[in-house]
Order: sequence, then C-alpha cells, then structure tokens
Amino acid sequence: MQRLNCIISYDGSAFSGYQIQPNQRTVQAEIENVLKKMHKGLDVKVFASGRTDASVHAVGQSIHFDTPLNIPINKWKIALNSLLPEEISVIQVQRVSSDFHARFNVKTKEYRYKVSLSKDRDVFMRHYHFHYPYQLDYIAIKEAIKYLVGTHDFTSFCSAKTEVEDKIRTIYEIEFSENDDLLTFRFIGNGFLYNMVRIMVGTLLEVGQGYRKPEEIVTILEQQDRTKAGKTAPGNGLYLWKVHYDN
Amino acid sequence: MQRLNCIISYDGSAFSGYQIQPNQRTVQAEIENVLKKMHKGLDVKVFASGRTDASVHAVGQSIHFDTPLNIPINKWKIALNSLLPEEISVIQVQRVSSDFHARFNVKTKEYRYKVSLSKDRDVFMRHYHFHYPYQLDYIAIKEAIKYLVGTHDFTSFCSAKTEVEDKIRTIYEIEFSENDDLLTFRFIGNGFLYNMVRIMVGTLLEVGQGYRKPEEIVTILEQQDRTKAGKTAPGNGLYLWKVHYDN
Repeated sequence: MQRLNCIISYDGSAFSGYQIQPNQRTVQAEIENVLKKMHKGLDVKVFASGRTDASVHAVGQSIHFDTPLNIPINKWKIALNSLLPEEISVIQVQRVSSDFHARFNVKTKEYRYKVSLSKDRDVFMRHYHFHYPYQLDYIAIKEAIKYLVGTHDFTSFCSAKTEVEDKIRTIYEIEFSENDDLLTFRFIGNGFLYNMVRIMVGTLLEVGQGYRKPEEIVTILEQQDRTKAGKTAPGNGLYLWKVHYDN
Repeated sequence: MQRLNCIISYDGSAFSGYQIQPNQRTVQAEIENVLKKMHKGLDVKVFASGRTDASVHAVGQSIHFDTPLNIPINKWKIALNSLLPEEISVIQVQRVSSDFHARFNVKTKEYRYKVSLSKDRDVFMRHYHFHYPYQLDYIAIKEAIKYLVGTHDFTSFCSAKTEVEDKIRTIYEIEFSENDDLLTFRFIGNGFLYNMVRIMVGTLLEVGQGYRKPEEIVTILEQQDRTKAGKTAPGNGLYLWKVHYDN
C-alpha cells in the first residue's frame, strides 16, 4: 500500500461542488469513479485539502488516497488523465508518507478571486470571473485589506450554515492587482471558513464603491455577526489556487 | 422603419450553432425571441453575415434587422443586452441604410483559430481552443500557408455537405503566431466555404507534424476532392472574428 498526493485542477462550472452528494455531479465522485475502475471495483476513498462549492474553481486542489497498485509513479498522471472527464486535470502526482493527510497537514492555502470591471460582458469569461462593471476606489480597498490581515475571529465573514465552532483564523497576506480591467485578489491564510473569501471580497467591493468606510472592517469583525458584513460574492470568480504543507 | 446593424459576440459552446433549428438552442433563435418581446409579439427576422456551426464562437458576428421602434440608437445595446442570455453579448449597434445587408454586402471576413500546444490540458480553456499537444514545424506550416493564399477552387477544403456550387474563393491573408504554447491562426478572405477554415487548420497541423509536405497543398487544391485534404479541426478553436463591409 502506498499513499499518493495529487495536485488537481477543475472547472467548477461543470460540478455541484467538490464533495460527493447524492444524484449530483461532483469532483470527488468523478475521481473516486476513476479510481474504482483502476482498482477493478475496489472502493478508494479520496481526501481533499477541503471542499469547494458549486461553480468554484481549482487550479491547485490537493488530494490523497491509498493504493495497492504497482503503477510506476511517473505513469499515474497519464493514467488518471486518460480516464478523467475533460473538466478535471491532474497536474502532478507524488508518493507521500503514510502519515501525510491532504486536509490535516495543510499549513497555508491560497485562494484567488477574479473580478472583471469591464463595461461589456465577456461571454467567454462568464464562468471564470465576477462581472462587476463599476469604478472602484483602490485606496479604500487597500486600507480595508489591512484590517482583515492578521489573526481574528472571522464569524462575521462566515456563512451561518457552517458547523465549525472555532472561527479564529490567520490571514497572512491579501494582495490585489489590476490588469486590463481584471482585478485579482489573492488571499493566503492558515485556513478559511465557509464562504469566507467570497464574503471578504463582497465586503471589499462595497468599500471600493464607497458604500462602506475601510474602518468599518474593525467593527464588523468585533460584532461577530454575519449580517454586518457585505454580500457573498459569486462562486464563479473564486479559485483554490495552491495548498502548502510542511516539508 | 429603420435598419439596424449589430456586432455581437457569443460563446459557441452554449448553442447548437447560429442558425435556427427546431428544438435546438441557437443564437438566432435567442435574438429573435428577444426582438419579439421588444416588439410586443411581432416577429422580427434577423440576417447574419453567415452561420456558424455548433461550438464555433463569435467575437464580431454581424447581423441586421428592421424595426419600427423609436428607441434612441444609443439605448439599443443596453436594451438588447438586458434581455439576451449571458452567452450572447451585443458589442455595438448602428443605424444603416435600408439597402445594407449583413450577408450580401460582406467584403471580407476574418476568422481566427486557436490551438493549445501545452502538454497539460487546461480545464478552463477546453471550450475555447483545440488541445493539440505536439511539436510542430513552423517553417513547414508557413510554407504550406503560401500555397493556400490567393484565389483558388477550394472544393478540397469544403465539407461535402455543402449546397454551394461556386467553390472559388480568395484568401487575402493567413497569419499565424505563437505565444506561450498558444498558436493563433488568422484568416482573411472574401468568403469561406462550409468547414473551410477548420479543414485548412487540420491540414496545416498535419503539415506541421510532418505527415504531409507543404507542396502537397498545390495538388490537394488541384484535385478538388475533400478526401485529399486533412482532418476537420474541431469547432471549439474557431472564432468568427470580424466582418468587413464596403464603406
């Protein structure tokens, strides 16, 4: 038995999210189906760094599973990609020790969120960014970002639907850049709560439009109340970009 | 009554082609539905520069229709885009004279074709380029292109399914460029037969792979036989880029 870690990319617009759900097309179900075929009917359970919601993309999702198969490590990627649907692609496969866990060993995660400020809709990008054709005050957004970075109770930036109790997370870095009307937010943290990135983006865009002052972030965090933060930005702009582990 | 010309963009992966077909989702049907709503149940027939097949995209398709509505010309784009589905976008609307015809007045058309040479599949681009992960001989492709440019009988580069009798067309320019493993072909001509760009691309890729010599293009053209040319490249890499009219 060996444990393999795979980096995978998928187009969230093709799935009802990452996690298996009855009668839904999910990323996990597609991968487990392929592994079952490769293992001649044996169920192989896949563990991911975390779930992603419907319409949310992954450039570098990380998963692991155990296998008794004697396929050379450099053939695994080709074997998996030849069986997986075109909306999922395996980028890298490596052997890891049996105590590696794709979820529990996560050190930091990076998410990106893409916003198009272009006046015209781009029909080819409709699944891949949030179309938000408004002028934004970048200085205000940058100031608001400063209040989000650090270790905080993020209850106000977490969907009320969560079952997680500990809402304290550390954000190490939030960057944003603009290029040709495309705004990219980059978040690096030790973990993110349910809808946390999308609520942060929704709130930052409201700051950018002048509906909220940057300093409001401080009181929103203090109030620990989801209704105080901004709208949840849509899933189609969100990408799970990279998962880091301890070496 | 006034005649309007619109430049429209659409994502071909969402439609069974441009032209109306029973029980299919087509671009023309969506536009005519919207115009019918705007004209309170009156049928408005839309004329395009030409049809595009299923999965083929448009960045600058050109259409015209006649309308008795008194909407100011600068409001038309907003009105249409607010009613059209997100896979179709109106880029520009202008008033034209009553003898303008989107199809019969075409002077030249530009198509582009995108090929990804990247080893890995890009899940986000699967509908927007042809994934062809092979090394190509660009010098051979450039030489083959020279034989295609000009006025020729393009029977060998036309689907046998066509009903068009005159197969003589003039190609003014074929360019190709590579950027980051993405190859873009650009074709400008006075008209293109059914599948003509896709068969030219399929054949040029076979030349690039060394399966055919560049000079073969001459004999393929002479033979006037579809079976002599290469495979039809898939529709998802093809874009109707721009339609030019006489001023």
